[in-house]
This record gives sequence, structure tokens and C-alpha cells, in this order.
Amino acid sequence: MGVTRELAEYLVSAQLDAIPQDVRYEAHRALLNYVGCAVGGSREPAVDIAVRALAQYSGKPIAQVLGRSDRLDPLHTSLMNGIASHVHDYDDTTPKNYIHPSSPVASALLACAGTQPVAGADFLLAFVLGFEAESRVGNAVYPAHYDVGWHITGTAGVFGAAAAIGRLIELPVQNMVWALGLAATQAAGLREMFGSMGKAFHPGRSAQSGYVAALLAREGFTGSDTGIEGPRGFAPVQAAKYDLSKVTNRLGVDFDLRENTYKPFPCGIVIHPTIDACIQIYRSRAIEPRDIAAVRLRVAPLVLDLCNKKHISVGLEGKFSVFHAAAIGLVRGKAGLREFSDETVNDPDVKGVREGKVAAIADPTVAEDAVSVEVELASGERIHQRVDHAIGNLGRPMTDRELEEKFFDQAALVLPSGQVRELIALCWKTGELSDMRQLIEAATPRA
Amino acid sequence: MGVTRELAEYLVSAQLDAIPQDVRYEAHRALLNYVGCAVGGSREPAVDIAVRALAQYSGKPIAQVLGRSDRLDPLHTSLMNGIASHVHDYDDTTPKNYIHPSSPVASALLACAGTQPVAGADFLLAFVLGFEAESRVGNAVYPAHYDVGWHITGTAGVFGAAAAIGRLIELPVQNMVWALGLAATQAAGLREMFGSMGKAFHPGRSAQSGYVAALLAREGFTGSDTGIEGPRGFAPVQAAKYDLSKVTNRLGVDFDLRENTYKPFPCGIVIHPTIDACIQIYRSRAIEPRDIAAVRLRVAPLVLDLCNKKHISVGLEGKFSVFHAAAIGLVRGKAGLREFSDETVNDPDVKGVREGKVAAIADPTVAEDAVSVEVELASGERIHQRVDHAIGNLGRPMTDRELEEKFFDQAALVLPSGQVRELIALCWKTGELSDMRQLIEAATPRA
Repeated sequence: MGVTRELAEYLVSAQLDAIPQDVRYEAHRALLNYVGCAVGGSREPAVDIAVRALAQYSGKPIAQVLGRSDRLDPLHTSLMNGIASHVHDYDDTTPKNYIHPSSPVASALLACAGTQPVAGADFLLAFVLGFEAESRVGNAVYPAHYDVGWHITGTAGVFGAAAAIGRLIELPVQNMVWALGLAATQAAGLREMFGSMGKAFHPGRSAQSGYVAALLAREGFTGSDTGIEGPRGFAPVQAAKYDLSKVTNRLGVDFDLRENTYKPFPCGIVIHPTIDACIQIYRSRAIEPRDIAAVRLRVAPLVLDLCNKKHISVGLEGKFSVFHAAAIGLVRGKAGLREFSDETVNDPDVKGVREGKVAAIADPTVAEDAVSVEVELASGERIHQRVDHAIGNLGRPMTDRELEEKFFDQAALVLPSGQVRELIALCWKTGELSDMRQLIEAATPRA
Repeated sequence: MGVTRELAEYLVSAQLDAIPQDVRYEAHRALLNYVGCAVGGSREPAVDIAVRALAQYSGKPIAQVLGRSDRLDPLHTSLMNGIASHVHDYDDTTPKNYIHPSSPVASALLACAGTQPVAGADFLLAFVLGFEAESRVGNAVYPAHYDVGWHITGTAGVFGAAAAIGRLIELPVQNMVWALGLAATQAAGLREMFGSMGKAFHPGRSAQSGYVAALLAREGFTGSDTGIEGPRGFAPVQAAKYDLSKVTNRLGVDFDLRENTYKPFPCGIVIHPTIDACIQIYRSRAIEPRDIAAVRLRVAPLVLDLCNKKHISVGLEGKFSVFHAAAIGLVRGKAGLREFSDETVNDPDVKGVREGKVAAIADPTVAEDAVSVEVELASGERIHQRVDHAIGNLGRPMTDRELEEKFFDQAALVLPSGQVRELIALCWKTGELSDMRQLIEAATPRA
């Protein structure tokens, strides 16, 4: 049996009580983090623009966009939720494949669950399965797929959304096979978009495309039976090297939710070690920007592959600049949403350090979650700081409390603090809710 | 200047009076062929299913689906027009890149033109430009892109739709650059779907995605400035070898519409030479199926790469079976829509020849528009037929009259013959129409 069908059979037959307790718990953490990001990003220009451009094409407004007063059809709501949840680059990451896994899956599911009664238990199962399908398809093609330039959140995301919605609407096996095929044939998203709104578009469009795949398949719109593994299928076409066994090995036993991480900083994860180290230097002693003579970073090669822009003027670009990461750590001692604004990127102190002082060397002996930083002061003194596992990493995970604080910081930009606390509590109770619209309502501005 | 911007500048500034007369004429032939295919395919199960699955998610029903009574929002109408126009695999092809070029472009344009007054001259210019953008982006990545398994109609198509809609809604240059970027990042479609409804989905989804790209870009949703040529852009990511100069060389001077072809048979173009040769044998003398001992085909290697299925049971699969092509040519002496029905595929005479008699050898010395056929009769007699340029090829183009007959055969399945003739006349007059809704109305069933 091909892996597409094997995966489909699992997606159709899995039961919540066979999902281990720790995986269900991690699913709640992932959903909490997702909802905070989606609400927190919901008023960003990228979302405003997308709503302005597309609302007039929306169908019946039966699904609530998280964090906004807008109601759209569930397909457009999936798109908007997806853009909002990724626009700050603050959502979760599975380090083994660099997917931002929750956004495509939860963006579609919360759009769908806004239109009809969906029990929290059914929602949770669909989320776990969508997350797993997406991450496993990603594992099969990582790293060749990512290295060539695919934004894997966009490409793998559509499988996750199709699997999750397909499960929620109870597709039979053959229809789930087609849904995965129709997902495969919509898998897209280029890393060339990094630094533009196009990046946040990817999980949104994946959520929407996966949802469409499931709806078409339900009515009998056929796709290939071998969308993932066939000779002209997703894996062979979109990866120079791939391992199909990773789609199905130990399915139902191993869960990639166990390898999910949450970002303490709203930017590309590969620059987190640099921020972490520079904040530690900032905290260890007060350094004035004018006293910094040079900053020397030794980073993993991937960091310069992804985040090598130094001369930037837009906040979004700062999220993918290891030079900016060092500058805000040393100048501001923190890296919240404000440190990736246009204003901060153009702040003379930050810009002076970023563009005049920081140099970075790619060193293959440095791991992707590590960094070595040397700051040379005008006095000639040198300060060294090394990070082996950046905060937020699997080796140093964010605590539940830290996740709640992160949620609060984001969502309180949009909703009153009492409502934010209510929403946090509901996220923790997802699996027990009788109707997910309770949670969605709590993520909606009240008149 | 990068090719994305150079292309955008041309798309924004080109004027209809600078489009050579022969190109405008060929655009009318392409539109005629497109409308016939879209109307002719409009009642096929793939379209019925897609409408059933998605109509409830449609926005305001302000755009007419060609050939149907359904009105949907223009994005969903783009999708349905695209599926309908490709479902019989009867639409046009540019042999130099194997794109079916008109479907993604015209499907979006005719959806858009259904919602507001659009002059035929503006429509025609947008069509020529969309066709050109799509085909040139395809040229840049062909053949490596196609060979690895991309359905180039899906991938290049989204550029064509974005360019055409972008021009129709008068995007400025920077917004056109973003539209092309947002198109690049939605470019998808796998050849693995061939033989399923997923194939016809591709031009439809391309039309819809390109339309969305243009709408987003108009409102200021940013994409990369280098979506086509950047190091993680469309060409480097989706093709092992590419030539960016093909996007912009002699832009405004050379037009790929001059290299467009129209199919006499509703199936994969690479099996046309085989059908042509076998029909010639059928016409030259009456052969009973039971008298056929063996059929030996020498075909271009690509033919077996694409159309190597012998044991099939579904009409759609027959469109990509060189064995079926030979069988219907020899048994039926024709290859119209009926010869690719489930019924014909399962006809004992056709099946007996296809699965019991026909063998094919890939021969690198045989061109893609040629074939050599040998039929051995039970008597031992051998009949040879060679085709150097299949009918419908650039070297043997369909005449205007043949295009009209093809249109009539398709559209008369759906509309009364008087209305079909009216519609044909309007297609020829596209460039002069004051409002394209005149044509769209004539493609709509009347109460």
C-alpha cells in the first residue's frame, strides 16, 4: 500500500483515546500559542489589506475571523486566521523540519468550527492528526525540499489542513486519499517571499487550499491515489532527496507534537540564539551603543543562508536579519513585537550597531540552536557569550506560564485583559468544550 | 533590472495598437477555441461536483459560469471555467512548452468581465498579455520543470491569470511586481494528477489564484520583488535548469500566440500522431478488430513517459493512453468526445485491441509530433503508416472552419444550435465588443 493511502487510513480511523496524554497536553500548549498569535496579529496591515482586498468576494459570513469583528465564509476566514497567526513570525516551529505547524491546521479548523457545533474532543483529535500529517509529510522531504527554497510551512501545511478538515467532516478513506492528492497538487510557497507579506500569506493560503481539497474530495472530486509518493507526486517533484518511510513509520506511536517548540521572540527561529546571547550580555552589564566597537557572531551556516540582510528599513526584514537580532539584544535588551517595528529598525542606535558593528561568520561546527558572540568595546575589552541551546528550544522549552505571558502580551493589544484571561482559560480546556464556538466567541471583540 | 520587474513594466505599459494584427487574429482563434471547450465541458461531472462542493462558499453571485445556469463570485467562477475548459483535454497547447495557455488566462478574465463593463479591446489586450506572460515564464523553465513532474499549465498558468487580471484592473508597476510574486508563490500542480479530475482542477485553480494575487497586490499586499528570478524564486526552485532571458527577450516583438495550436482530438497532445495515423489506416481500408494480430507503435520517448497506461477502465485515463489512442483510431476511425467515454474505454472491441494487440516502443529518433505505426493482420499482411506532423500541429494547423466545427460539436451538447452560432460570431468579434457581457450572456443557457 502506498503511503498516501496508509496515511489516509490512519487519519480516518484514529481515536482520541489512543492519543497519549502527553501529546494531548502538548496539543493544548500548541493551540494556546496559536490563538495568542492569531489574535495578536489580527490587526496587522497584512490582515487589514487581505480583508479589504477579498471580503467583497466572501461567501456567507458564517465564520468569525479571530481577533477581528469581521465574519467571512470559512475559506476566507482560514486565510485570514493563517495570515494573522504568522505575520509576527511568532508561531510555533518543529525544529526537525522548520515547519510552523499549527497555523495551517488550526486556521482552517477554527474557521470550520465557527460554522457549526464542533465538540472540543473532536476538534482536538482533528488538530493532532492534521499536525501529524503535515509534519510527517514535511519530514519525508526535509531538508532537500527546504534547502532548494520551498517555504515548507506553505507546502506541508496544505496536507495538514486537508487532513484536519477531512477528519472533522468525516471523510471515508478513498475521499481522504483524494483530499491528500488535491492537497499535494496545491502545495506551494517560496522562501523568496521572506521579508514581504507573502510569507504570512503561505500558512493562510495552505489552510484555505487544504480546506478546499477536503470539500472537493467529500463530493467525489477525484485526485491521484498516490499524491505524495507517485513518480510525479509531491515528494519526487518537490525534493531532490526524500524518505517516504517517514510519512508512516510508527504512525500512532510517535507524535511530532512532542517535538514542537514555541518562540520567545517574534522572528526567524534561527536568529534566536543570537538574541538570547546578546540579551544575556545586556543583562550582565550596561553597555552604551557608542561603547561598542565590534560584534562578532559565529553562527550555523543556515543562519546566513536565511538571515543575511544587514541594510534594512522595514520591521518585517528585521525578523530575518541576524545583524538586527544582535543589535536589539545589545541595545534594547529585549526582542518583543516592538523591536521588529519599522521604528526600531530605523532607530539610529540600533541601526548604528546593526550596520556598522556586527559581523557574522558561518561556522559548520556551530549547531543551529547555538551561537558564539564576542563584543569588543571601545576600551578594547572583549565580552564573550556562548549559547548552546537557545531559550524556547526543545532543550530549554518555554513553560506554561511563559506561554501564557506571551499570549497575554500579544492578545492584550487587541482584546481587554479580562477577556484575554478568559480566552487563555478556554484554550487550556479545549478538549472538554462542548462547542468550540465558545472559544471562538472569546477571541472576538465584544461590542 | 530583474525579469519580474521588466515583465511587469511591459504588462503595465503595453498598448493594443502595438500588438501585431496577426497576433490579435490568433488571439481570436484562441478565444474561440477556449469558449467552445469551456461551454462544451461545463456539464461534466468534475464541474458539477466542484459546484456542488463549493457553491455554498461563494460570494455574491455576480459572475456567470460559462455554459451553466450557475452564477458565483468571480473567483469561484474562474475555478469552474478553468475546470470546464480543460476537462476534455481539448483546449489549446503551445508545443514549445506544453502549456495549455488560454484556460488559466481566459477563465479568470471572463469571470472578471462578467462583473463589470469591460470593452472587448481591453479584454483582448489583457488576454494577449496574460497569455504571453504565462508562456514566457513557462519557456524559461521548460523542459526541466515539466520533466520533473510539474503540470506546467498549473504552474505557469497562475502568472498568466495574475498578469491578465492585473492589467484589466490597471495595476501600477510595483503592484504588478507583487502580483507576479504572489502568483509565483502559488504556482502548483503535479502531473501525478493526470487521469483524475485533479488535472482539470489545475487551470481552474491557477485562474483563481492568479486573480487573488492581483486583487491582493492592488490593495498593497506585498510579495517579493523578484518572485521569478530570485535565488528562492519560481525559476530556481521549480526547475533544475532555466533561462531567465526567455521571460523578457524580444518582449513586445515575439508573441507565443503565433505558436499556439488547437487540438482536433480531446486528449493528451502527444498521442495525436498515433490517432492521426490509425485513422488514416482505418480510412484507407476496412479492418475488423478480430483481423488485427498486432499493432506496433514507434513513438517519441515522451509519449511513453506521459501516456503509458494500457489497462484502464475510465474515460479520463483513455486520454493519456497511447494504446487507447491506437485502438480507437483502428476500431472507430475517429476520436471525438465519445471515444474517451467510460463506455468506449470498456467496449470489448476497443479493449481487445488496446490491451491485447498494441505495443509501443520509445524511439528517440521519432519527433514528438510524429509516429510510425505498423498493423499486422491475422493474414500476416503488414500495413505501415507514418505521420511526420500530426493534424493540429503548427505545421498542419486547424483552419478557422475546422475550429468552428469543433466549437459547434462541443457547445451544441449544452446550448441550442442557434445560440451556438451566435456565440461563435461573437467570439470572432471580441476585439470590437463594447461590453464583454454580450459574449458571456450568449454562452449562458437561456430560460
